[in-house]
Amino acid sequence: MTALPQAETAALLKFALSLAEAAEPELLSRFRCGAAVDNKLSTGFDPVTDADREAERVMRQLIERTYPDHGILGEEFGHKDTGSDFTWVLDPVDGTRAFICGLPTWTSLIGLTYRGTAVVGVMNQPYVGEVFYGSQEGAFCRHRGTTRRLSVRPSARLGDALGGSTSLAHYRTDEEKAYVEQIRRTLRTMRFDGDAYFYSLMAAGEMDLAMDAYLQPYDIVALIPIIEAAGGIVTTWQGDSAVGGGHVIATASAELHSEALNVLRRIQLS
Amino acid sequence: MTALPQAETAALLKFALSLAEAAEPELLSRFRCGAAVDNKLSTGFDPVTDADREAERVMRQLIERTYPDHGILGEEFGHKDTGSDFTWVLDPVDGTRAFICGLPTWTSLIGLTYRGTAVVGVMNQPYVGEVFYGSQEGAFCRHRGTTRRLSVRPSARLGDALGGSTSLAHYRTDEEKAYVEQIRRTLRTMRFDGDAYFYSLMAAGEMDLAMDAYLQPYDIVALIPIIEAAGGIVTTWQGDSAVGGGHVIATASAELHSEALNVLRRIQLS
Repeated sequence: MTALPQAETAALLKFALSLAEAAEPELLSRFRCGAAVDNKLSTGFDPVTDADREAERVMRQLIERTYPDHGILGEEFGHKDTGSDFTWVLDPVDGTRAFICGLPTWTSLIGLTYRGTAVVGVMNQPYVGEVFYGSQEGAFCRHRGTTRRLSVRPSARLGDALGGSTSLAHYRTDEEKAYVEQIRRTLRTMRFDGDAYFYSLMAAGEMDLAMDAYLQPYDIVALIPIIEAAGGIVTTWQGDSAVGGGHVIATASAELHSEALNVLRRIQLS
Repeated sequence: MTALPQAETAALLKFALSLAEAAEPELLSRFRCGAAVDNKLSTGFDPVTDADREAERVMRQLIERTYPDHGILGEEFGHKDTGSDFTWVLDPVDGTRAFICGLPTWTSLIGLTYRGTAVVGVMNQPYVGEVFYGSQEGAFCRHRGTTRRLSVRPSARLGDALGGSTSLAHYRTDEEKAYVEQIRRTLRTMRFDGDAYFYSLMAAGEMDLAMDAYLQPYDIVALIPIIEAAGGIVTTWQGDSAVGGGHVIATASAELHSEALNVLRRIQLS
């Protein structure tokens, strides 16, 4: 992570956490209202889109009030490029399908880049009451008032590893499909439909690998500081910075990262 | 549901909820300890198995103290057949893989059958802080002190429906695979890896269909009173009682149930 003065990082992280909290009412008021929504479907009432838009609106307003010169990149309202070194990267509801189904595994992602490097990240799940966050000061999970420091478990090999990926359907080319299938077969277990949670649980030492294809920056920027501060690695499938999204792989150790990328290289060579 | 005196049902439900609560410390103390467990793996330390066993032990002790004549069927310690009309059906950790990965979607299932009919059911998720429960008095969800009554949304057709199933890997025969694949293709969206949550979210009007193959009684008995009291339907794929487990389908309406079973019949005929 890029060196920012410690006091500045602490203030920006605190502000990122306040953004997450400010968005909560917009999200929770529209979560788990399935049966109530039923007879409004024909009128175009769409709780998850409303949640996404209203939560992003609240966060943008706070950013514009507190850091008017900072850039903002959000899923719903696009890119506000101010030429600043800082850009806030927002995804109010990561895991739209989980949200729609009432599952408590969608999250709000709030990241901050400084000169193109992710320096602060927050993943918030207000229904569960837990938030994961990271910066150069470390990675942490706070669950209903109890905060603990996160660290990866670096000892797993690919064959012992627990992994996750959003959906098999996201892999499009034959090479992509062959890669995820080979990883799935090699791991001890691979889960789907967990979205951003897989990356934070890897940072927490619960899982060992997370991978996805065709991510947007707002799907991954917030997770990078959490993963890196916990001792994990996150890059593109080519080993480059994941800040721009794309095909991303995150692992609990350099050994696992190298093992996983070797699987990909063997597929590309065959 | 079978007619029990209202006061007796209320007492049994209250007791079922107390079982769920008594099991919580055994479960939560072993959840999310991935990194801490890492260096103990070689010594055979297995948190989810310990959680399952210790939680079932606590619940069995309470049942034996309070209702010594009742039967007990548990995942870990088998069947205690007392010849009673009542049998408690226990799965302390449904969703073992979610538990291992640190995802907050595993649950404790506590069901009670009376003369072979499921009359009381509890699905508890203590990390999220929510419990779903049902009896002839209705179906409810309590989330951190707020209780609301559940009801299905009956209006969805198969093509609009949100569905869930534990894992594609659980379908073994060609016919089973063809069935789940046809359902998956027909639904608006189908999720995997949600375990018992899918059934309770259907009862809550968030989802419309849940299906699984090769269930044990302790995977489904607790969910039946929740689903039925919310207005849903749950049967085997043949339309019989799901109390014995097996191949189970649950839907938000009779129309959806009939549509889903028709898909199966067309596959069997082809």
